[in-house]
Amino acid sequence: MKEFDLIKRFFTEQGVKRKDVVLGIGDDCALVHVSGRNNIAVTTDTLIAGVHFPHETSPRAIGHKSIAVSLSDLAAMGADPTWLSLALTVPEIDEKWLEEFCAGVFELCEYYNVQLIGGDTTQGPLSITVTAQGLTPVDKHITRSGAKAGDWLYVTGEIGDAALALKHIQGEITIEDVFKEQIVSKLDYPKPRVLAGHILRDYASSAIDLSDGLISDLGHICKASAVGANIVMEDLPISSVMSDTLGHEQAAQVALSGGDDYELLFTVSEDNKVGMETALANSGIAITCIGQLNASEVITTTFNKKPVPITVSGFEHFSSNSTV
Amino acid sequence: MKEFDLIKRFFTEQGVKRKDVVLGIGDDCALVHVSGRNNIAVTTDTLIAGVHFPHETSPRAIGHKSIAVSLSDLAAMGADPTWLSLALTVPEIDEKWLEEFCAGVFELCEYYNVQLIGGDTTQGPLSITVTAQGLTPVDKHITRSGAKAGDWLYVTGEIGDAALALKHIQGEITIEDVFKEQIVSKLDYPKPRVLAGHILRDYASSAIDLSDGLISDLGHICKASAVGANIVMEDLPISSVMSDTLGHEQAAQVALSGGDDYELLFTVSEDNKVGMETALANSGIAITCIGQLNASEVITTTFNKKPVPITVSGFEHFSSNSTV
Repeated sequence: MKEFDLIKRFFTEQGVKRKDVVLGIGDDCALVHVSGRNNIAVTTDTLIAGVHFPHETSPRAIGHKSIAVSLSDLAAMGADPTWLSLALTVPEIDEKWLEEFCAGVFELCEYYNVQLIGGDTTQGPLSITVTAQGLTPVDKHITRSGAKAGDWLYVTGEIGDAALALKHIQGEITIEDVFKEQIVSKLDYPKPRVLAGHILRDYASSAIDLSDGLISDLGHICKASAVGANIVMEDLPISSVMSDTLGHEQAAQVALSGGDDYELLFTVSEDNKVGMETALANSGIAITCIGQLNASEVITTTFNKKPVPITVSGFEHFSSNSTV
Repeated sequence: MKEFDLIKRFFTEQGVKRKDVVLGIGDDCALVHVSGRNNIAVTTDTLIAGVHFPHETSPRAIGHKSIAVSLSDLAAMGADPTWLSLALTVPEIDEKWLEEFCAGVFELCEYYNVQLIGGDTTQGPLSITVTAQGLTPVDKHITRSGAKAGDWLYVTGEIGDAALALKHIQGEITIEDVFKEQIVSKLDYPKPRVLAGHILRDYASSAIDLSDGLISDLGHICKASAVGANIVMEDLPISSVMSDTLGHEQAAQVALSGGDDYELLFTVSEDNKVGMETALANSGIAITCIGQLNASEVITTTFNKKPVPITVSGFEHFSSNSTV
């Protein structure tokens, strides 16, 4: 959480307000406008070894994840990705490592037709900063601040598996051998919801990508939109491996708090509900309604219509050395 | 030099070639086109404590320099700066440090009307990655590759003072007390040549900013343009403090090799020479003609019309722990 306080306090109190900046600091992306029918969405993320991914992560997975987290921010804005700049700091020149890292980067670039247009390479402790850009039609982007009381709360895919993988890597739990690879790949190779974001910009009232964890990221929507929300715990889309490994109750708690899923959390009005569900179903994108927004400005959870306390905090990167 | 080999080898062999990318990896900036009469120039630079600035550098100077080096790349492209994204990695939350750092950042932002639109803040060894963007009219940018044999070679301002400051900080030389602050500020607070770049896009055949050192950066122009160059050593614009401290001969050698000046090195055809000189003089920008390009594809130096050997290599950051 401190990350956001820090950014807000020191970096938003600037004197410059350009007319071509449609949206500045504070959402998943900034939006700027040059000319024509599109805005440009811009997002920057830093991944540090030992903070944002375990030291033992493969270079291919690090390359993949570096790009995926930024494309995920673009998706949360409804933007189609276009260009990337990549700043890579490595402790030494290890050609094999670099080849694998680039393979991870370029696999995603080619899949989404995103071009690497520049960057920098420096020597130091391993870290990667990616600035990704994308395009979204003027007035068709999705922010965190457009949600209204009464809107329905949805999430794409399944949530919590990345946190489960982390618990496995940290030795807190044991995943059955046959499922290990499947679950760890959810942590190492997150799939940015680019197509879902593209479709949702026609329907969603707000969106954010799940990087810090459901409760934490929903908190950002609620704060930005001045609404509250209730989450229906039994509706959370949890994988069968997750349920089998932890039991449903603990699995649901992990799904509330665990980060790194990079699914989209979004809201949609009653009027847009059917249209959105149809459009996403036509594209084969699984979504689940997990609750509804209200005017309370707090987040609650219920199980079988009875209130249950939230016992977890958000933002649980794998290390206690959390993002500042 | 390794920096460029590394980038070229691993990062330019990508499969994606988007039509909206006017210029990809390999120049001071990339250029992309969305719509309308401008291209967008994009550049990314990472500064690492202990590599790109001495550990004892003040936070205000670090903030200034982080932005200045990126604006300098935009200037070398002839682009007018517009937006910045800043990824800051700090070992701890030190409010005083952050305030001073931000003051250094925002001073430059306000001077050049550049808006900080996003970024990331993470915990780790001090480093800063800035992605800066700017606008330049379609077909009016300056690349490294447009120089022709016969073009004249120019540099803005004075060169070598940043390297002199470094030698002072490292205890290799002693600068007279009365000049210390003036010289060290050349290293700590480089002034990006934004206005010069804006004017030069109408006149220059090529340009680069002096970050690695004159010989090294001229080498990039020569390689990209397939030309050679002769530098007239007695014409190098060296400060009087520099001459007095080192003597003219050694001062000229330091001016050839020392980095971090962030002046513009540019070339101009015989036809554009007078127009360019008049336009820059009208804006009060000091420039010096330091040589001429030729068809040899090597760089030579002369003193009083006699060849002198080049005894220095380029790219001399202050630390032996150089950029990879």
